[in-house]
Amino acid sequence: MFKDLGIPTPAFADIQSQADLDAAVASIGLPAVLKTRTLGYDGKGQKVLRKPEDVVGTFAELGSVPCLLEGFVPFTGEVSLIAVRARDGETKFYPLVHNTHDSGILKLSVASSDHPLQALAEDYSSRVLKQLNYVGVMAFEFFEVDGGLKANEIAPRVHNSGHWTTEGAECSQFENHLRAVAGLPLGSTAKVGESAMLNFIGVVPPVEKVIAIDDCHLHHYGKAFKAGRKVGHANLRCKDKATLEQQILKVEALIAE
Amino acid sequence: MFKDLGIPTPAFADIQSQADLDAAVASIGLPAVLKTRTLGYDGKGQKVLRKPEDVVGTFAELGSVPCLLEGFVPFTGEVSLIAVRARDGETKFYPLVHNTHDSGILKLSVASSDHPLQALAEDYSSRVLKQLNYVGVMAFEFFEVDGGLKANEIAPRVHNSGHWTTEGAECSQFENHLRAVAGLPLGSTAKVGESAMLNFIGVVPPVEKVIAIDDCHLHHYGKAFKAGRKVGHANLRCKDKATLEQQILKVEALIAE
Repeated sequence: MFKDLGIPTPAFADIQSQADLDAAVASIGLPAVLKTRTLGYDGKGQKVLRKPEDVVGTFAELGSVPCLLEGFVPFTGEVSLIAVRARDGETKFYPLVHNTHDSGILKLSVASSDHPLQALAEDYSSRVLKQLNYVGVMAFEFFEVDGGLKANEIAPRVHNSGHWTTEGAECSQFENHLRAVAGLPLGSTAKVGESAMLNFIGVVPPVEKVIAIDDCHLHHYGKAFKAGRKVGHANLRCKDKATLEQQILKVEALIAE
Repeated sequence: MFKDLGIPTPAFADIQSQADLDAAVASIGLPAVLKTRTLGYDGKGQKVLRKPEDVVGTFAELGSVPCLLEGFVPFTGEVSLIAVRARDGETKFYPLVHNTHDSGILKLSVASSDHPLQALAEDYSSRVLKQLNYVGVMAFEFFEVDGGLKANEIAPRVHNSGHWTTEGAECSQFENHLRAVAGLPLGSTAKVGESAMLNFIGVVPPVEKVIAIDDCHLHHYGKAFKAGRKVGHANLRCKDKATLEQQILKVEALIAE
């Protein structure tokens, strides 16, 4: 669909067998990422192939299920766009978010201001939403490559990289999703202050320390702590960028404790 | 308690009988307000006495229960202070709120900026909180009289005139009440933008019209609509006072429809 809509993507190929994989590696080259077509998230259901020996037997290793091979993109940054489309076609976009991952899991999202690629990301995303006659929130992940964007993934739902909107936007992605689905007017996607979201992966630091940080809003999922599992996040909403950067360091320090 | 703590109040007297009432009216004068000592809210359990004939039989009319007679205060405004006190005695205050009532029911609360009586209100309230060794949120209602304050009522809980803090303050009265009771650090009571709260009394206007107003956050209680019952409220959080005033007019116009 991306190709038909004129949206750049990394090189990729359908993989139904180890023979498909070998052929695709020969064509696309290494490094590349092999991803299962379904049920992948947080780095699960994917493997980075760097050397020829990484390719051997890898199709079976991922369960011999339909996969995609994706050429590795030398990106300078990863951004996501949270969009919402109403039943009547009205579409709104939140500011682009800069994302930082660790071992395939989103670690930090920072809402941008006047990002130079905002208009391009909105253009690409609009094409997809219109083509699907989509209603609700959809998240678009892009790689920043050579001053442009390559579509990485889309998620037809509210998205982790939009969690900051709970406190950081006039109307959150959650409320806007419900408004869209219910046929109600969409709410403003404008930022309130400067915001970031930090995921708590495996463990939530002591609550009394998290909430003692000014401008910090704790979202605790009440899940059992387990390595690699997202068990909460902190939303920071600050009066300016400089304060936000300081407060991010404080939350990161807690996470590192 | 107010008297012992040096906090001005309207003139008042304990009323246990019609004879008490007659004597108190003779001493305090008219107009005055007769209030039941318990279970009064939203104008219920009280009667304004303006003329001598209003006094006749009024004690029985309010159920022959213990009452207070309160001298009518020629106030220039009504403000409330939402305070929160932690287990360790740390106390924080939200900005003073200007309240407008209609038939004894709160209609509009507007959060102030740098109100000249903020420090005085905090001083009076601190005395009460400390005396009671109180933990949690407490609301203090004051009359503005001759450039000073007279204590009207206190409510040992989160309060309708603090509902604006859900979107309008860094940490809401609800979260701060829980933090206090749970022995956690208190959150910031600083304002986020300029805020007001409008009660929906009897009926919530059509949802699609309420949420189509920019900066408007609908809180719908899901209660049956009934005259005189609070069934929801709208919180407005705007970037400046001028915008806030415009948006208040829009919500008021919806209420009047």
